[in-house]
Amino acid sequence: MLRLSTTRTIKSTRQTYLGRILTKCYESTYQIPKTQKGVIFYENNGPLEYKDIPVPKPKSNEILINVEYSGVCHTDLHAWKGDWPLPVKLPLVGGHEGAGVVVGMGDNVKNWKIGDLAGIKWLNGSCMSCELCENGFEANCEHADLSGYTHDGSFQQYATADAVQAARIPAGTDLANVAPILCAGVTVYKALKTADLKPGDWVAISGAAGGLGSLAVQYAAAMGLRVIGIDGGEDKKKLFEKCGGEVFIDFTKSKDIVKDIQEATHGGPHGVINVSVSDKAISQSVQYIRPTGTVVVVGMPANAVVKSDVFNQVVKSIQIKGSYVGNRADTREALDFFTRGLVKSPIKVVGLSELPKVYELMETGKILGRYVVDTSK
Amino acid sequence: MLRLSTTRTIKSTRQTYLGRILTKCYESTYQIPKTQKGVIFYENNGPLEYKDIPVPKPKSNEILINVEYSGVCHTDLHAWKGDWPLPVKLPLVGGHEGAGVVVGMGDNVKNWKIGDLAGIKWLNGSCMSCELCENGFEANCEHADLSGYTHDGSFQQYATADAVQAARIPAGTDLANVAPILCAGVTVYKALKTADLKPGDWVAISGAAGGLGSLAVQYAAAMGLRVIGIDGGEDKKKLFEKCGGEVFIDFTKSKDIVKDIQEATHGGPHGVINVSVSDKAISQSVQYIRPTGTVVVVGMPANAVVKSDVFNQVVKSIQIKGSYVGNRADTREALDFFTRGLVKSPIKVVGLSELPKVYELMETGKILGRYVVDTSK
Amino acid sequence: MLRLSTTRTIKSTRQTYLGRILTKCYESTYQIPKTQKGVIFYENNGPLEYKDIPVPKPKSNEILINVEYSGVCHTDLHAWKGDWPLPVKLPLVGGHEGAGVVVGMGDNVKNWKIGDLAGIKWLNGSCMSCELCENGFEANCEHADLSGYTHDGSFQQYATADAVQAARIPAGTDLANVAPILCAGVTVYKALKTADLKPGDWVAISGAAGGLGSLAVQYAAAMGLRVIGIDGGEDKKKLFEKCGGEVFIDFTKSKDIVKDIQEATHGGPHGVINVSVSDKAISQSVQYIRPTGTVVVVGMPANAVVKSDVFNQVVKSIQIKGSYVGNRADTREALDFFTRGLVKSPIKVVGLSELPKVYELMETGKILGRYVVDTSK
Amino acid sequence: MLRLSTTRTIKSTRQTYLGRILTKCYESTYQIPKTQKGVIFYENNGPLEYKDIPVPKPKSNEILINVEYSGVCHTDLHAWKGDWPLPVKLPLVGGHEGAGVVVGMGDNVKNWKIGDLAGIKWLNGSCMSCELCENGFEANCEHADLSGYTHDGSFQQYATADAVQAARIPAGTDLANVAPILCAGVTVYKALKTADLKPGDWVAISGAAGGLGSLAVQYAAAMGLRVIGIDGGEDKKKLFEKCGGEVFIDFTKSKDIVKDIQEATHGGPHGVINVSVSDKAISQSVQYIRPTGTVVVVGMPANAVVKSDVFNQVVKSIQIKGSYVGNRADTREALDFFTRGLVKSPIKVVGLSELPKVYELMETGKILGRYVVDTSK
Repeated sequence: MLRLSTTRTIKSTRQTYLGRILTKCYESTYQIPKTQKGVIFYENNGPLEYKDIPVPKPKSNEILINVEYSGVCHTDLHAWKGDWPLPVKLPLVGGHEGAGVVVGMGDNVKNWKIGDLAGIKWLNGSCMSCELCENGFEANCEHADLSGYTHDGSFQQYATADAVQAARIPAGTDLANVAPILCAGVTVYKALKTADLKPGDWVAISGAAGGLGSLAVQYAAAMGLRVIGIDGGEDKKKLFEKCGGEVFIDFTKSKDIVKDIQEATHGGPHGVINVSVSDKAISQSVQYIRPTGTVVVVGMPANAVVKSDVFNQVVKSIQIKGSYVGNRADTREALDFFTRGLVKSPIKVVGLSELPKVYELMETGKILGRYVVDTSK
Repeated sequence: MLRLSTTRTIKSTRQTYLGRILTKCYESTYQIPKTQKGVIFYENNGPLEYKDIPVPKPKSNEILINVEYSGVCHTDLHAWKGDWPLPVKLPLVGGHEGAGVVVGMGDNVKNWKIGDLAGIKWLNGSCMSCELCENGFEANCEHADLSGYTHDGSFQQYATADAVQAARIPAGTDLANVAPILCAGVTVYKALKTADLKPGDWVAISGAAGGLGSLAVQYAAAMGLRVIGIDGGEDKKKLFEKCGGEVFIDFTKSKDIVKDIQEATHGGPHGVINVSVSDKAISQSVQYIRPTGTVVVVGMPANAVVKSDVFNQVVKSIQIKGSYVGNRADTREALDFFTRGLVKSPIKVVGLSELPKVYELMETGKILGRYVVDTSK
Repeated sequence: MLRLSTTRTIKSTRQTYLGRILTKCYESTYQIPKTQKGVIFYENNGPLEYKDIPVPKPKSNEILINVEYSGVCHTDLHAWKGDWPLPVKLPLVGGHEGAGVVVGMGDNVKNWKIGDLAGIKWLNGSCMSCELCENGFEANCEHADLSGYTHDGSFQQYATADAVQAARIPAGTDLANVAPILCAGVTVYKALKTADLKPGDWVAISGAAGGLGSLAVQYAAAMGLRVIGIDGGEDKKKLFEKCGGEVFIDFTKSKDIVKDIQEATHGGPHGVINVSVSDKAISQSVQYIRPTGTVVVVGMPANAVVKSDVFNQVVKSIQIKGSYVGNRADTREALDFFTRGLVKSPIKVVGLSELPKVYELMETGKILGRYVVDTSK
Repeated sequence: MLRLSTTRTIKSTRQTYLGRILTKCYESTYQIPKTQKGVIFYENNGPLEYKDIPVPKPKSNEILINVEYSGVCHTDLHAWKGDWPLPVKLPLVGGHEGAGVVVGMGDNVKNWKIGDLAGIKWLNGSCMSCELCENGFEANCEHADLSGYTHDGSFQQYATADAVQAARIPAGTDLANVAPILCAGVTVYKALKTADLKPGDWVAISGAAGGLGSLAVQYAAAMGLRVIGIDGGEDKKKLFEKCGGEVFIDFTKSKDIVKDIQEATHGGPHGVINVSVSDKAISQSVQYIRPTGTVVVVGMPANAVVKSDVFNQVVKSIQIKGSYVGNRADTREALDFFTRGLVKSPIKVVGLSELPKVYELMETGKILGRYVVDTSK
């Protein structure tokens, strides 16, 4: 109870903008507890335990974040199952879409102050010295440190994060709603940047009305793109249009998806974002893309393969690009679209204690929409 | 005989630069014959006949070129066999690497004068009004007109060419040696541009010592790139190094090509140009490419398919790009490297009358090096 | 009277889409007159005469356009006065924002048909063979042919235009309203592209509520940019906000424009479009631009000079770019934004016979808004 | 004496590559002294004292470098005089081109080990969290920390440097020769990248045979560019040609520099690097640049101003860009060209104790070539 009221006070501080004096005040009075609630597992596929665990201490380059809300992502399931080629830390606290308040920091941290809003995202750190890091591809660094994967993540009340990589969330932001932007939002925004389109171009979103897809449609519309969506069913169509989409292709009705898309866009879209991870959908996108256009693959299905006919790809000069997660700049930009109200993120909030059930839903494929856990419950 | 001596006179004109007055003079005295020698076929896979055919008349937008030399390209074989999805004109005079002298032109042609050197290249014309043409992707235009495919090409003594698309060859250029640059040279140069590298980056050329490959190595070196070549055998290695290559991977000796390439380039090349059209080689290139790097496919094998594991492509943020032929700017630039002596083109010259034999060699896979036909023989 | 009704028939054709059969029909029945009304001058600063002049004949590469409406641009005044370093054709029919219907064409023209809507724009032709043309910078070609400057323009009922350069206007477009897009719209759109911004970036429009400025604000908003405008007065502010602008800086009220702009944009805009041609405004823009940002100059005042402190420009890594008119692709794109209803063009329509009065207004600096002449009156 | 022999041992370690075991050994035995020799000043324009000063201790994010050699740059003179708008730290040890060996590091440093070669460069640190830092423009960050300006620099035997910003110098590199690459080399390389040229393009170097200029010519040639140099005198011409330059324009002989440059480059160079800081030379470069080309200003003279005629800049679509110092990626790349032997850096080595005399030479404008100080003397 104490925690909650304290948090509320910090919240009101940042909302009333009393500034540094009050911040200093909290800094001296705010009591960081020794233990906290978190969800932890000790081996892959082992029990997900909601229990008391120690509050971590920030290293000299880290901030300590009082996580209020955290989104739940399909990647969290992979981390738990351990079915990706990258080994996870064990035991592990998962989660990489955490939004909260800075309550502590290491000696060497500048530019953050107590009470700032901060976000935990997939990439928590990298070597900052290799060619990839130097060029802004920090997520591709071979020493990448990953929240909720190789570093304890946001499924706990207090989490540490690298001061350089932690996301800056503007004061006054709704922390529950912003949580999924930190991974899902940034990822689709980055994919759209990777497609390298210009305002007025057509972009197809394959899987347009799913969790990632509906965010992608909103970002695309806000970027001045014309959006054609591919998904199935009338409800999906309505959601798509509400998000700012222009033309909807219903794969349950279309007799020739390639033809329908090319006709609607007068020659094919200039870019395609494949948030759907179906092999077939990806291969189709290489067929309906406009000559010289760009097909982006962004999801990470277990064993999917992109297949592209060489003759077709050469004669049409098509590009197929893999897009991973965004870097610091992409994160700031993606958050800015959200803060400006151009992108909305529909969520279902449940208590952190209910997280094991959410994993169950994910595993059985029964999840609908984006779940966000409230760490206070 | 007359033709040869006339041509020689025109040649000397352009070499002594007596300019427009002499040009006018030739214009009035140079006699364009009514018939000429050419190699023509009337149906796909039908006889290739070396015979007298009419000299074509340039339309208002065309120039008439007295072709002196023409390269022979694998595409010419496809045109004759008709095994590509694009239908050919019939009867057809093939050839799209023709170098010669302008001897006539239509009413509406500006900026060419009699005696200029001109080149016939794959793309002979396009609509110039569609989005692709407007953005310099004229070869991708759906109304593309192709030399030696939909328009009679350079396997004849006199050929017409669109005045905008015909290549400008600087005075004094050796016409036999420049011929293969007009298609093979431009194609590999465009592929290198498509890889979007910067000087100092590593580029792998898969098939480094073949006809296209040895040109690619020379262009890459002249562009300030570091070149790693993949091919088989000591002779190939020597040719590769003579062309300016730095590291040679012999696939007949390497036990782990992916590992060897990544070690030699400290993490994989930034770009790969696949002039080899082997499925396996292309798939390997997606594995050894450096994260965020670009794999270019440029050849057009019949039924080849690029396969790329989605997880790998996403996590490494890899790009796979199809590159077709160069546009007008690419052509001028590729010719400029040749003219400056930075790229050499090893050729075997035979008479035009021997062209049917060259087709035979191509069909049976016995061709070695680049053949160029002399139209006067 | 005959002309008008004929035109109307053509209009209804394109509106009812009866297609080629009717087009053919008109082609055979539509009578192109021998003479027409036009405004012509015989020497610089000489009388502007509204009179009967011959209808020009299209060359083999040209279309003949029945111009219905033409915008009037400040450049027309320069052409008449002859005060630019480029010599004009004399006698001259001015005008380079003409919108009309194709009624004839030369032998060599493809891809246009009778009844198509076409636009006359500043650039009427270029050599298509130099390095600049090849790279899409046709307007910068030293052989550029300019409508209403070196080629008779749109201040007449029938004008010729190069078939490649003429703008394609979608069927159903309002020809009076689209006219100013052909130069003013394309020019500001090109300037925005030259600023090389991404959606979400801040762009300042200096001179935000003038003729060019109000178009620039609309294009910028449609491109997903955040717009800060600089101009003077409450009416201007209202117009600016109606156009989609976000922050207005009133130079009649601001005590420190540089500071006000930097504060509103949290560090300065990422780009500035100077449609105002004031020396002082341009110099200020170099001061308030965000580090690494781009200042674009686009107007062409007689003797204006950009001044930039080297120390400031280096330390802030600022770019200053000149932007001229758009090319074929820019034109198509700019028209597309208009056609989609994202950009409106407020105009005043007067008869062609009143054009001399419009020149007078321009010369005395009394012009307000964009004039468009109706060639039928 | 002790220091020298110890250093020598470390050197031989890295040259014989005995690896980590020996490194560990030195780590435990190498004695970092408490005091060292350095050149320090206590107020602007005050005495430059060569004396014993304390050895600094690295913070948690810093490495301690045993500086062996340091280049001397004109900026060092500005720091001492305090005539730039940015205030300097006082007292100050100058120098920002230091090359040496890592002998210590803070708790939080990863990826460096004792015995690595490291370089001190102008930018020693930045906030890493602002939009500029996130996009790789760390030098433009308003919290930039500058070696030899706001942070004690390389004119001492032991200096601290931020572990992220310190340059990685490959083992085996000659530390005296590499020193000037760390600022002068990186700066001209960055300027060339800023010009955004492609291999085969022409670049003009204004001030081609000076300290920066001769490096610029070598980098340009290694990048596949064609170099035209502007400078005065036969000796300069010889040096220019030795560096790989193609055409030399002698301003002491040319009667019309603009015309001579445009003729030699067939229309003007595609880019110009102004390492000369003369107002007149910069203004001329805006005149002779090829249409659509890029003029780069890179030096930082006290009160120089770029002047550009708006009409000319618009009609020719010219870009004028300020280029500051390189970032981490630029530094790595510039060092790589040096390491590969493509760029040589002619230097004069003197003892650190003689540094005050070098300042005198700089102040009186009598300096010739690049001075490098040996900290052991």
